[in-house]
Amino acid sequence: MTPEGPASPPGRRGRDPVDVADLVARARDGEARAVARLISLVEDAGPALPEVAAALAPHGGRAQVVGLTGAPGVGKSTTTTALVGVLRGRGLRVGVLAVDPSSPFSGGALLGDRVRMQDHAGDDGVYIRSMATRGHLGGLAWATPQALRVLDVAGCDVVLVETVGVGQSELEVASLADTTLVLLAPGMGDGIQAAKAGILEVADVLVVNKADREGADRTVRDLRSALALGGRHEAPGAWCPPVVRTVATAGTGVEDLARALAEHRAWLASSGEGDRRRAARAAREIEAVALTGLRERMGQVRGSAALGALAAQVVAGRTDPFRAAALLLDQL
Amino acid sequence: MTPEGPASPPGRRGRDPVDVADLVARARDGEARAVARLISLVEDAGPALPEVAAALAPHGGRAQVVGLTGAPGVGKSTTTTALVGVLRGRGLRVGVLAVDPSSPFSGGALLGDRVRMQDHAGDDGVYIRSMATRGHLGGLAWATPQALRVLDVAGCDVVLVETVGVGQSELEVASLADTTLVLLAPGMGDGIQAAKAGILEVADVLVVNKADREGADRTVRDLRSALALGGRHEAPGAWCPPVVRTVATAGTGVEDLARALAEHRAWLASSGEGDRRRAARAAREIEAVALTGLRERMGQVRGSAALGALAAQVVAGRTDPFRAAALLLDQL
Repeated sequence: MTPEGPASPPGRRGRDPVDVADLVARARDGEARAVARLISLVEDAGPALPEVAAALAPHGGRAQVVGLTGAPGVGKSTTTTALVGVLRGRGLRVGVLAVDPSSPFSGGALLGDRVRMQDHAGDDGVYIRSMATRGHLGGLAWATPQALRVLDVAGCDVVLVETVGVGQSELEVASLADTTLVLLAPGMGDGIQAAKAGILEVADVLVVNKADREGADRTVRDLRSALALGGRHEAPGAWCPPVVRTVATAGTGVEDLARALAEHRAWLASSGEGDRRRAARAAREIEAVALTGLRERMGQVRGSAALGALAAQVVAGRTDPFRAAALLLDQL
Repeated sequence: MTPEGPASPPGRRGRDPVDVADLVARARDGEARAVARLISLVEDAGPALPEVAAALAPHGGRAQVVGLTGAPGVGKSTTTTALVGVLRGRGLRVGVLAVDPSSPFSGGALLGDRVRMQDHAGDDGVYIRSMATRGHLGGLAWATPQALRVLDVAGCDVVLVETVGVGQSELEVASLADTTLVLLAPGMGDGIQAAKAGILEVADVLVVNKADREGADRTVRDLRSALALGGRHEAPGAWCPPVVRTVATAGTGVEDLARALAEHRAWLASSGEGDRRRAARAAREIEAVALTGLRERMGQVRGSAALGALAAQVVAGRTDPFRAAALLLDQL
């Protein structure tokens, strides 16, 4: 599928033919520009996407994908930054993917308020990338798993994925992750509200950030009783989500958080739940791609000569809409 | 596809095997029970629907399908009843189909407030039927065209179709009809509002019912200027929707309305617009059936062994989601 023409000259970007296999090889060697270029190809969701996916498939599968969710203002960016510091301190390679489903823009320059990420700007053990999904069909479902795969293939031990902007995508992020980290802050959304929102169902680790503020004890207590009511820990061998207190701006509790993530990773491996989640995720991804393909083919059919001819046969009474639909589907 | 077993004993209904070809033959002879049974089969949208559609296909194509739309309280039922009387007076066979997308019930007993329809209860030149679409996938889009086809095949010259209950289906009814009749009443929704609602775009005949009430002149004037602004009559040979004044409860103006419908029918034939509408309708029907079929097949795939096996291959890195989706689609 790779064009047989000459490879792009160094330093050129844009619409040139791309040697995907070469990019993947260089990403595996840890070349940051190759990683960035592959994520751009994935983000465009253009014709290169299936080729990129095929080239990535044999590699990776080693990273722990950690999804961060939480209401705006709860401290997601700060927590991410602090967590990256702790994980780097342990010698782990880290990827950060910030997905903004509502923005038409992308790229590192748009990380905006995450100035503290600059702490890691010169560190070649960290890849930081924000990605827009541009509102195209199945954006988050399509492109994001492959972007995560790029970071995995590039040798990241942990990939943190976070949605920016509009809510509702919390549950989608959870469906992409091995480990889902739900952030709360005292006074904004207590345990009961979190339970109502269905967030406790998907949380593997709960973080009460800004834990030096008034009401933190109460929020922790509420969460613990909501979890107890949920009864998730009662099954033998089940994972009971820990509640971790952090003050991310001061780094307080972030070591505990990193430990909780590592414990969850170990549990995923020992319980078999990790394999189950990966399989379910792959199934959802296949379905999303298949459905998008079907919709596209139906779109091509609308107003086509084939549909027009079948409609004329129905009008003339030579066939009926059901046989015509079957013929149409055969042609897809 | 017809079961080879004995035909249902007379008087029995329900889940017995059905001889669809025999039912269609009897419906063509004008047997009211066969017409009712066929509409029930269509309404159930069960496995018999494609067979019924195939048996109906070679017949009919003669009826003028007239869609009635208008806000609740505007007098749709009364107008329908009065119109049936006038059309019957001209010796035409008439079908009436009342579609209620929001009701789980169906059948003549539920015509409820249309007590006046009793005027036609003993008349074997009129079929009256209400139909529920039970909220199943594509209900209105799927079942209604075939129910109209049943009434067409049964020899109706005119079939009046009307939605009961929730709005929003006005435009859908328009998409089913040869001739769309939009009802208004003085003081409820003037011409400007109708224009805003997009209703003037689809109207072939406008009716100001309750025209003995105050404000009727103004409503007629408003409609005429809104139509003039729309500029639909300016193209050569175009149809300019007439505005008919009626007092349906007294029968006033209903002859004019019947004349307008006949004129539109003649224009549909002479302009070629009738053929164009039928072809567009058939194309939409084929698409609706095809899309529903695709969704059903995807639904069967969810959680299937085939998808599970493909997901396992993706997890193992032996394939990628795009190749897996292509394989999945091949299996559909």
